[in-house]
Amino acid sequence: MTTPLRPPRAADVQAALAAIRHQVVRTPLLESATLSERCGARLLVKAETLQHTGSYKFRGAANRLRLLDREARRRGIVAYSTGNFAQAVAAAAQALGVSAKIIVPHDTPAVKRDRTRALGAELLFYDRTVPGRREELAAEIARAEQRTIIPPGNDTDVLAGYGTVGAELLEQFPEPIGALVVPCGSGGLTAGITAVVAETRPATPLFAVEPVGFDDVTRSLAAGERLPNAPGATTICDALTALYPAELPFTVMRGRVRGLVASDEEVRTAMRLAFDHLHLVLEPGGAIALAAALHGRVPAGDGAIVAIASGANVDRTQFADILRGA
Amino acid sequence: MTTPLRPPRAADVQAALAAIRHQVVRTPLLESATLSERCGARLLVKAETLQHTGSYKFRGAANRLRLLDREARRRGIVAYSTGNFAQAVAAAAQALGVSAKIIVPHDTPAVKRDRTRALGAELLFYDRTVPGRREELAAEIARAEQRTIIPPGNDTDVLAGYGTVGAELLEQFPEPIGALVVPCGSGGLTAGITAVVAETRPATPLFAVEPVGFDDVTRSLAAGERLPNAPGATTICDALTALYPAELPFTVMRGRVRGLVASDEEVRTAMRLAFDHLHLVLEPGGAIALAAALHGRVPAGDGAIVAIASGANVDRTQFADILRGA
Repeated sequence: MTTPLRPPRAADVQAALAAIRHQVVRTPLLESATLSERCGARLLVKAETLQHTGSYKFRGAANRLRLLDREARRRGIVAYSTGNFAQAVAAAAQALGVSAKIIVPHDTPAVKRDRTRALGAELLFYDRTVPGRREELAAEIARAEQRTIIPPGNDTDVLAGYGTVGAELLEQFPEPIGALVVPCGSGGLTAGITAVVAETRPATPLFAVEPVGFDDVTRSLAAGERLPNAPGATTICDALTALYPAELPFTVMRGRVRGLVASDEEVRTAMRLAFDHLHLVLEPGGAIALAAALHGRVPAGDGAIVAIASGANVDRTQFADILRGA
Repeated sequence: MTTPLRPPRAADVQAALAAIRHQVVRTPLLESATLSERCGARLLVKAETLQHTGSYKFRGAANRLRLLDREARRRGIVAYSTGNFAQAVAAAAQALGVSAKIIVPHDTPAVKRDRTRALGAELLFYDRTVPGRREELAAEIARAEQRTIIPPGNDTDVLAGYGTVGAELLEQFPEPIGALVVPCGSGGLTAGITAVVAETRPATPLFAVEPVGFDDVTRSLAAGERLPNAPGATTICDALTALYPAELPFTVMRGRVRGLVASDEEVRTAMRLAFDHLHLVLEPGGAIALAAALHGRVPAGDGAIVAIASGANVDRTQFADILRGA
């Protein structure tokens, strides 16, 4: 990678929002009296599930790809992803007429594979249990075909794009936030939001929520160094299974964010309650911040709880099973 | 009723939006390349399902209730509804501390009954197969308890409130609209939108979509007089089963709107595609405009097709069944 790993600042995020505002959905802040009552505090949910391709990832891809020069656009890009970033990069590349190759885990849900291909991208598969394998593959393809690597999180401009979720939220909700709660895999969304919120509203308590058994970010933030997940855990939150916190996101989050966990059963309950009371489709990983808020896992603060709902790419069958209580 | 039946004008709708803007969700306009391809035209969906209480009805209730004087607020209100207006009035009344009695059909889905009661309203039931029965009941209660009747559609200020869906849309999408397609029961939403769109963007083709077998508005618009539905039909669109076009909405729509129908199977398909590609929860009646657009029932026009998605109050079990293809 040639991009230096400079942590994004609030100004980067604000510049990103100015640049991509016309391309992205300004996702609404929703609330329900029933859910607020359950939380014991006013609860607001930023419905980023309604973003193009169903997740915040489109913001990062759009912000990174707009910065490619003409020659780089002609050569194309290569990206890797656990699923949602794949669709986002494919959509952003298609909009610019840029060729995209995307490396995804061999066990990516069919719905995410199909939708990525429908956006014109070519898929390649890797074994997610081998650490570093996807980065190696991407580097090989980038060398052989002179493609630009678009990393899902370890990149200043990608993170600044993700951070526009937070910049938009601050515009929409100028009142005090008692807890800002964010779904967390390797830390990209949390870091992007932290870049703008910690600098412009420093009193806001920030929380990253991970699945039980995939608490690498939580433990790393507590320890002050990047620690991996223990092997062998499973979760329905397929988007949140990264082995390690990504390097640049960790730098941004360290000392500013606390980690929390939520269980798969809490995630399923949150998906059902979001369906009933907010009329939202959430994928498991996208529901985990809401799950933490609804199950008393978020410390009370001075102001509303704001939970980011971040992804909506879930199979019909899985969603139907969860609605039926399975 | 003491309110004169004056048709709302564009200025009424704009005044309503100025008054209730801070209380309502500015619902996003969503699109998906896959769905546009299927329509053969750019398709935009206004996700009014994300409104408070899950439908556009909240806008009408909020606009009507804000105009009650102190004495009327103390005495309370009485309303009747096939379901979604019940929740909307209950929420708007609760916000103002006004007592609400609401008359609903005996076969209202449990989810709509429960959510209305959770908002503090008292429910009374009527037999929907008896024409005029709910209006009689409301008049009796209004007389006995000096409550103000809040009709679901036959009221200038309620329709102006509904019309804010259209006023907001025109702000969000200044480009030409080739077809504006609206779910239609007795005509309230269509009329409200027509009031503002036909006056301020008169070239916009307007369509009201009804379930097959419940095409009273379609036939009435073609005939130039209000005609009832033939008895005996059934539909999954429980919110769109009014026997007649309401009087005031019909006055507003006549000569400006054309009717279309869509089948239950087309509605189910639209619900599945909205889940997949827009990540929206739609109830059957709320999906019918999208159903018409996705099945080639909307005549091609000069500009994008805009479909209003209007309601999201559907049982978990019914939604799960429809996702599974049942």
